[in-house]
Amino acid sequence: MAKQCTIAILGAGRIGQVHLQSLQVVSGAQARVIVDPYLTPAMTKQIRSIDAEVEISANVASVFSRSDIDAIIICTPTTTHAELSFSAFKKGLHVFCEKPLERNIKKMQKMIAMYEESKLCYQVGFNRRFDANAQEMKRLINTGKVGTPRMLRITSRDPALPSLDYIKQSGGLFFDMMIHDFDMARFLLGQEVREVYASGGVLVDDAVASVGDIDSAVVVLTFTSGVLAYIENCRETSYGYDQRMELLGSKGMCSTENMTPHRALLSDTKGIQSPKPHYFFLERYAESYKNELEGFVKAIQQKNPTTECSIYDGKKAVELAFAAQKSFESNKPVIL
Amino acid sequence: MAKQCTIAILGAGRIGQVHLQSLQVVSGAQARVIVDPYLTPAMTKQIRSIDAEVEISANVASVFSRSDIDAIIICTPTTTHAELSFSAFKKGLHVFCEKPLERNIKKMQKMIAMYEESKLCYQVGFNRRFDANAQEMKRLINTGKVGTPRMLRITSRDPALPSLDYIKQSGGLFFDMMIHDFDMARFLLGQEVREVYASGGVLVDDAVASVGDIDSAVVVLTFTSGVLAYIENCRETSYGYDQRMELLGSKGMCSTENMTPHRALLSDTKGIQSPKPHYFFLERYAESYKNELEGFVKAIQQKNPTTECSIYDGKKAVELAFAAQKSFESNKPVIL
Amino acid sequence: MAKQCTIAILGAGRIGQVHLQSLQVVSGAQARVIVDPYLTPAMTKQIRSIDAEVEISANVASVFSRSDIDAIIICTPTTTHAELSFSAFKKGLHVFCEKPLERNIKKMQKMIAMYEESKLCYQVGFNRRFDANAQEMKRLINTGKVGTPRMLRITSRDPALPSLDYIKQSGGLFFDMMIHDFDMARFLLGQEVREVYASGGVLVDDAVASVGDIDSAVVVLTFTSGVLAYIENCRETSYGYDQRMELLGSKGMCSTENMTPHRALLSDTKGIQSPKPHYFFLERYAESYKNELEGFVKAIQQKNPTTECSIYDGKKAVELAFAAQKSFESNKPVIL
Amino acid sequence: MAKQCTIAILGAGRIGQVHLQSLQVVSGAQARVIVDPYLTPAMTKQIRSIDAEVEISANVASVFSRSDIDAIIICTPTTTHAELSFSAFKKGLHVFCEKPLERNIKKMQKMIAMYEESKLCYQVGFNRRFDANAQEMKRLINTGKVGTPRMLRITSRDPALPSLDYIKQSGGLFFDMMIHDFDMARFLLGQEVREVYASGGVLVDDAVASVGDIDSAVVVLTFTSGVLAYIENCRETSYGYDQRMELLGSKGMCSTENMTPHRALLSDTKGIQSPKPHYFFLERYAESYKNELEGFVKAIQQKNPTTECSIYDGKKAVELAFAAQKSFESNKPVIL
Repeated sequence: MAKQCTIAILGAGRIGQVHLQSLQVVSGAQARVIVDPYLTPAMTKQIRSIDAEVEISANVASVFSRSDIDAIIICTPTTTHAELSFSAFKKGLHVFCEKPLERNIKKMQKMIAMYEESKLCYQVGFNRRFDANAQEMKRLINTGKVGTPRMLRITSRDPALPSLDYIKQSGGLFFDMMIHDFDMARFLLGQEVREVYASGGVLVDDAVASVGDIDSAVVVLTFTSGVLAYIENCRETSYGYDQRMELLGSKGMCSTENMTPHRALLSDTKGIQSPKPHYFFLERYAESYKNELEGFVKAIQQKNPTTECSIYDGKKAVELAFAAQKSFESNKPVIL
Repeated sequence: MAKQCTIAILGAGRIGQVHLQSLQVVSGAQARVIVDPYLTPAMTKQIRSIDAEVEISANVASVFSRSDIDAIIICTPTTTHAELSFSAFKKGLHVFCEKPLERNIKKMQKMIAMYEESKLCYQVGFNRRFDANAQEMKRLINTGKVGTPRMLRITSRDPALPSLDYIKQSGGLFFDMMIHDFDMARFLLGQEVREVYASGGVLVDDAVASVGDIDSAVVVLTFTSGVLAYIENCRETSYGYDQRMELLGSKGMCSTENMTPHRALLSDTKGIQSPKPHYFFLERYAESYKNELEGFVKAIQQKNPTTECSIYDGKKAVELAFAAQKSFESNKPVIL
Repeated sequence: MAKQCTIAILGAGRIGQVHLQSLQVVSGAQARVIVDPYLTPAMTKQIRSIDAEVEISANVASVFSRSDIDAIIICTPTTTHAELSFSAFKKGLHVFCEKPLERNIKKMQKMIAMYEESKLCYQVGFNRRFDANAQEMKRLINTGKVGTPRMLRITSRDPALPSLDYIKQSGGLFFDMMIHDFDMARFLLGQEVREVYASGGVLVDDAVASVGDIDSAVVVLTFTSGVLAYIENCRETSYGYDQRMELLGSKGMCSTENMTPHRALLSDTKGIQSPKPHYFFLERYAESYKNELEGFVKAIQQKNPTTECSIYDGKKAVELAFAAQKSFESNKPVIL
Repeated sequence: MAKQCTIAILGAGRIGQVHLQSLQVVSGAQARVIVDPYLTPAMTKQIRSIDAEVEISANVASVFSRSDIDAIIICTPTTTHAELSFSAFKKGLHVFCEKPLERNIKKMQKMIAMYEESKLCYQVGFNRRFDANAQEMKRLINTGKVGTPRMLRITSRDPALPSLDYIKQSGGLFFDMMIHDFDMARFLLGQEVREVYASGGVLVDDAVASVGDIDSAVVVLTFTSGVLAYIENCRETSYGYDQRMELLGSKGMCSTENMTPHRALLSDTKGIQSPKPHYFFLERYAESYKNELEGFVKAIQQKNPTTECSIYDGKKAVELAFAAQKSFESNKPVIL
């Protein structure tokens, strides 16, 4: 058996806990410590119910001074991603970093420069790449079943508006929400975007406008080969988390449907009622969170710095979010 | 263009009117007269709204004395099927006869004997054979896509209990309702039944018991090759007319879903609601009623006495209904 | 019974024949004559197989000199729509006109002016409004089931590229193909567009570029209330005619699925195979062609000049096609 | 936190390993030892890859002499179930026992007598009760959404014939395969069977006859209230594990569809291809295996001897299998 890969999780909020949970079943990996400078008793309790033995700490710096850690998982606010990555590179630790990679372009360039010198593994947390639907879609494209891609549609809707506090610090819809879809479009098509047009508005709740954001958007991406991709995001639905995609190619179309907690139908006087999609990303993408960490651990074990979602992928998604933001503000297409 | 086939419809009730409607679009056929000894002003009005030019009469005998008729469609009560067929054979008229063919075995034998001497076309009204779902299922079987059949399931449920008056004179569930499914099983499998077991009861409304019938049944048919077919009938659902089938074979399974008036879905807090099936047979099988008459008219034009649903098919279905009735009453399997 | 509405069909090509076929079952209407200046023996034969008694003529002018015609159906090339409408208005004939209404704005204005003086019925042939899926979607919107609309998606793909000759004279994808979707968006939302952004390209066949057109497009429409609608068109699929829509509202989402010739599924080693959509519009929208003529005939009988798809609707769709064309050419959003 | 429940697994074959895997994520439980008298190096390796710390032993008796075990999970051959249960009762250990409970009626009665004196928890491994589809169906019944049950259908098909060696010692199709469906019917309807009719045959492979079994069967159960339930089993399909149910009630129908590894569809010239069901029970019912152990551990922690699938449920299913076997052999319905 390969040596266990020991891991420190930075950030003990919701997503940090998701990764801790996943590590329970990722073979070859062990969560050693989870740290958060804003640790609360509630967090500690939640962590304990997941893993009885992981160390819990409020001292982030301590992670970089101990010698029993192979890799870190960064789940702290975006503004800390660069500094924590720098520390990891210096210490020789592999890094798994949540999205968005970084909003400061200069810092992002430095991250990439250090990464390139490091020979370490770096993976960005675009977990949806590791979802069964996305994987099957990619497989159908790669095996030629859809032929040459022509049109890609991504529909991605959250079940409920996050708090205004969350929205305020989120970087806005393009950076916080649609960034997943920008990455998905690149992942599926395997090529780059040459033009972005973004349209959007406040259609769910006027309060969103008051904090300077939008809650609904349609973005059209033209890829280098001419493929037209269009992405729809909305912050609220009445029926749960809506995650569908559709790729039209010269030979066929691949489309994905929402996954549901069960598949029991009720037929009565009102019609045939089938279940709603999973409520939100924790339920819907639970498997993908495990899968991405399995990939990360495998890359480390195989000493392969080219992870399945690289630091460059992280950068490209950020650039697309910037372009969409600019297009939306100027109401003009933006050439990349 | 082939000579028009001129037709007399005997019986001006619901099913007689369905055939009159179908004849409006069956090319090569023309309804000349519709007769009913119990003709009412309401019937006359309904007939007029379908076909402004067809003759309407209460004199059944007159049909057999005129010389401008090529074929008759028998939609009168089952007890009249034999005598009307005899008259048609004598007059040299082709016959389309509604199901069940005849419940008196002696008369049925005479019908067949006269038919065999006649060189006329005789078709029984098992319209479901001509439905798009059944046709596709038959095609998949015939082209080998499902391989050797193993199991056949037919689910056939009416939306609402008919009147007790109707039930009283219907001959019972096996003769009136399941007879369609007996025919369908033979049609799809292309072989005969060697054993019948029938189970049933009154699960919808006790009043059905008071007129000596049941409203729900499950029947298991063992075919000569060993294929097990099982048929479920129920006289009532809350969600409309339920017509599904499923054939498991060595290479694959073919199954059919209910057809619906539209395909618009509503997703909301309660789930994803898709439309109910068509309400009942008039909506659901409208196309099949046209198709069966097209087949009948074509057989006449091609002087081909072997119609797509022959007098022998009519007889076999009646025999299966008798066997099911006997099995139900004796609570034992019946060997044919 | 109301007096029969007598009709002349102008143009004996495919769509003219569709309307002739529909008139066989539209109650209260009778096709008296079908005219086409380019009448061929093949056309005559096809027409005869549909209706044995309709007059066939190559003399378009004759329609306007006879006195036994109540209404005309215009199925001739777009460039003739205005003149034929003028003749009809002068003669006091009701008009059903195929889409697009007219590409010359001046002529269109004159058509509308004459219409407004005429008290005649005028209906434009946006048949999809009369489709069961669209009707159900509209019903769900009108009854408040989806709440306030936020996002509308229309996916509309043809099964195969038309001939280059057809494309050359078609006015281009926005006028010939997407015009149906512009109308549908307005029909469903019941409001007007304030901004159009069009993106498109040649993704199916380079020959389309050689005749100055595109074969694929994504258009974003911002409606007055802020609703974002996006329409995708592609001239080719491998799987048939793809006609789906989806409206996200504050209370729910209504979406429509493709209709299919049957609903038989084959489950085998490859997966579960369900049927392709209908091949193209003739099969898919057969019912809607009947329904729109029924609506037209009813409007005439009720002397109601406000048809279910008015001359103003025809004009609005043309304006949206112009705006999309301009946006596509300038690569900028166009404000209406 | 409640004290950990320590568990010994008896039998280290496939199902023993499934339970070991489940225990990794069942909170409050810990697998202490897994024993198998026929332990092989391959088993040991598989066990190690699941749980690095569980003890592995070939000495079954040792389990009952140690003092650190609270409960046993019996995954050994059916013929050992009684003796192992007796040992557990004597030692005061809770028992989770795989199906079928026991085929020797006398021994089964003794098991029940000892259980009743013991105040220990006893649960039988009908895992499908704990599946999301079955749970939702039960919920819809319990909340009155389907009204009074009338008809229940269970379709249960394995993807491939097991080895003849397996079949020989399995007890036959009714004891080995359909026993799950007998339990499911009782679970859903919450009432008992009064009559059983079984029909079956060798439709997959003649070799099955050579070991005295059948591979296909249809069984009709009449429940005390009159509800008709019919169960179809087949040992082979080309498309994977087929697990569907359907309950028709006075107010509505609840039906369940197969679950699939993903929900990506491919539309091409052949049709719309959706994914096959999960291949077999390990994939399909993985969640239910976790859920049943969670229920068992919870019952122990709450000192509640009435588990969610009791020893009486185990007995009833065995009685139904006997009745079906007798009906099949005598070709007559069997009254219970």
